[in-house]
Amino acid sequence: MPQTDPVDLTRRLIQCPSVTPEEGGALVLLEGLLTEAGFACTRVDRGGVANLFARLGHAGAPRTLGFNGHTDVVPVGNTGDWTVQPFGAEARDGYLWGRGATDMKSGVAAWVAAAIDLAAEIPEDGALIIAITGDEEGDATDGTKALLDWMTEHQERMTACIVGEPTCPNHMGEMMKIGRRGSMTANFTARGIQGHSAYPHRARNPVPALARLMARLDTHVLDEGTEHFDASTLAVTTIDTGNPANNVIPATSRATVNIRFNDAHSSEGLTAWLREEMERIAGETGIEMSMEVKVSGESFITPPGELSALVAAAVKAETGVTPEMSTSGGTSDARFVKDHCPVVEFGLVGKTMHQVDERVEIAQIQQLKRVYTRVIRDYFA
Amino acid sequence: MPQTDPVDLTRRLIQCPSVTPEEGGALVLLEGLLTEAGFACTRVDRGGVANLFARLGHAGAPRTLGFNGHTDVVPVGNTGDWTVQPFGAEARDGYLWGRGATDMKSGVAAWVAAAIDLAAEIPEDGALIIAITGDEEGDATDGTKALLDWMTEHQERMTACIVGEPTCPNHMGEMMKIGRRGSMTANFTARGIQGHSAYPHRARNPVPALARLMARLDTHVLDEGTEHFDASTLAVTTIDTGNPANNVIPATSRATVNIRFNDAHSSEGLTAWLREEMERIAGETGIEMSMEVKVSGESFITPPGELSALVAAAVKAETGVTPEMSTSGGTSDARFVKDHCPVVEFGLVGKTMHQVDERVEIAQIQQLKRVYTRVIRDYFA
Repeated sequence: MPQTDPVDLTRRLIQCPSVTPEEGGALVLLEGLLTEAGFACTRVDRGGVANLFARLGHAGAPRTLGFNGHTDVVPVGNTGDWTVQPFGAEARDGYLWGRGATDMKSGVAAWVAAAIDLAAEIPEDGALIIAITGDEEGDATDGTKALLDWMTEHQERMTACIVGEPTCPNHMGEMMKIGRRGSMTANFTARGIQGHSAYPHRARNPVPALARLMARLDTHVLDEGTEHFDASTLAVTTIDTGNPANNVIPATSRATVNIRFNDAHSSEGLTAWLREEMERIAGETGIEMSMEVKVSGESFITPPGELSALVAAAVKAETGVTPEMSTSGGTSDARFVKDHCPVVEFGLVGKTMHQVDERVEIAQIQQLKRVYTRVIRDYFA
Repeated sequence: MPQTDPVDLTRRLIQCPSVTPEEGGALVLLEGLLTEAGFACTRVDRGGVANLFARLGHAGAPRTLGFNGHTDVVPVGNTGDWTVQPFGAEARDGYLWGRGATDMKSGVAAWVAAAIDLAAEIPEDGALIIAITGDEEGDATDGTKALLDWMTEHQERMTACIVGEPTCPNHMGEMMKIGRRGSMTANFTARGIQGHSAYPHRARNPVPALARLMARLDTHVLDEGTEHFDASTLAVTTIDTGNPANNVIPATSRATVNIRFNDAHSSEGLTAWLREEMERIAGETGIEMSMEVKVSGESFITPPGELSALVAAAVKAETGVTPEMSTSGGTSDARFVKDHCPVVEFGLVGKTMHQVDERVEIAQIQQLKRVYTRVIRDYFA
């Protein structure tokens, strides 16, 4: 069987202008290639977002290795700031340049190329699932979630899943992700009684009360880290009052905190703690306070085990580097996949993602295909 | 000598549209009347502001009673909100209506009317000075200050001065002012290092540092009040960051405090204290902080004595009420006069000042003229 070229596929994907929520031809291209290679493909579009589900082998096979990725990309910004055409996929100086080069058309191309080449080797009790969304960079409400909902509904199951996001900060192979911290944001509003600065006793000033609450939350140590996680963190990101008159005590002030939390916490427990602290300060100051919490995701982990060991071994074999099993970084669609099966993330160096002149080292795409090839082979070995 | 009617003079002054810095004909009117009564008048205009200096008697007379007031008024706002023409000076229901009715054309009219009627009674060693500015409601940089600068330059001295601002909160005669608290505003800027909310240790967050400083300043008790003053107060009037992104730790945040301080403090001492607190928090948090202080006025007092007793007795005799000797309220031009001679403030009820439908009780204007007449007579007795 002829080798599928992951660099050429990356190039063709970059040339699809698939800025969220535009499909841009990327999923159509993949559907064609995968169908040709024997995959059963289904478009799982929802809410104006295009998603592609592909399976090779029987539904419900006892060993079903999944891959999750996305072909949508963030906007290019000011085209004039780019050295190249953002969707030109120009090869220059050993790099392939363009929006989505690292995040994550190269990752999708490397896996799809490996999967096509290995199609004939998948055993009878095995299956490959490839679930590609067009909404990872947007709201993510009709992307991977829609794919997983559809899979549940159609009894499609994965026994393990790889997410192909770029995971290496600087050097190929140095990091894989086995979980992520949770993330939540709390918006506080403090309401007092407006008055004249010269007579504070006739007013109720919400500003120092809110300042006291923020100072208090800021100094609290949530934890010292857990076995697989860094310490949870809280950041007071803004306090705003918007009172231009220094002879007026304002009626209202607002503040926001963002919490990144590990497996020692849940958003529910943290919400209760925030509320308790808020009510304490409200009681002490006589200022009415309220809070709105938005949870982006709970923390999750696939504890080091068979799957992570398999991926780590493949990385080591192809790059010479043993990847750190990290839970650092922002969020990814692994937060949805983890409810379905063990999931780990491994991809190439993400340094230029979301930036002007985003580019990927051509050699890294080839290396990543070799890592993924080994992962697929070893999974079914 | 025919009695000068203070109500008619108030009416004529209200009809002059003297919104700061417009002279509006008000000072021209007064200059004519005072000249006719034997006053030597000089226009002391500066920086586009009209001011009137008038003296009856010899310059440098050993007993020179001054009067300070203003004919400028604040803007009328939306004319449609008024029941009357703002500059119509309509008499209705026992009130004279219009912008400046209480603040303070009635006060100026009452004193000028009293002074004209008493012109013949001023003794050989006595003099009356009337200093009227057209810039009390504005920046006040070229108003009473300009008059006092000019007086110093021309060896014009007052041995005592009455400021005719409305001083009574609700009932005629209930309050005079013998001083005022000082006022200052400090604007703080905290500068850290921007970063991602998920990695607070790689950033330096200025927001909680500023919150800590504000919470600390807010709880500090400046004093418990002094013999003639209420306690000093500090109000945190605003904290502003303007960071809309909850995944970003901002680089900068700002806050403002306003302090009203009594004679236990000076703006210099308070500035040093603020700086010390700021530097302590900056040291504790590693956040760079800076501060800009603007002093509106130091606290001042003319301690109860001959002058205040004389005014209080006149008020009691004409209204039946013994006025409280207060140091409350915002600032007035007495803050400039106090550097030249003892000064007390007495005027009528200021309830509607700066408001739509500003109006003055006609009977109060007549009563105020009687009080001022008694003050002038008693001063030279």
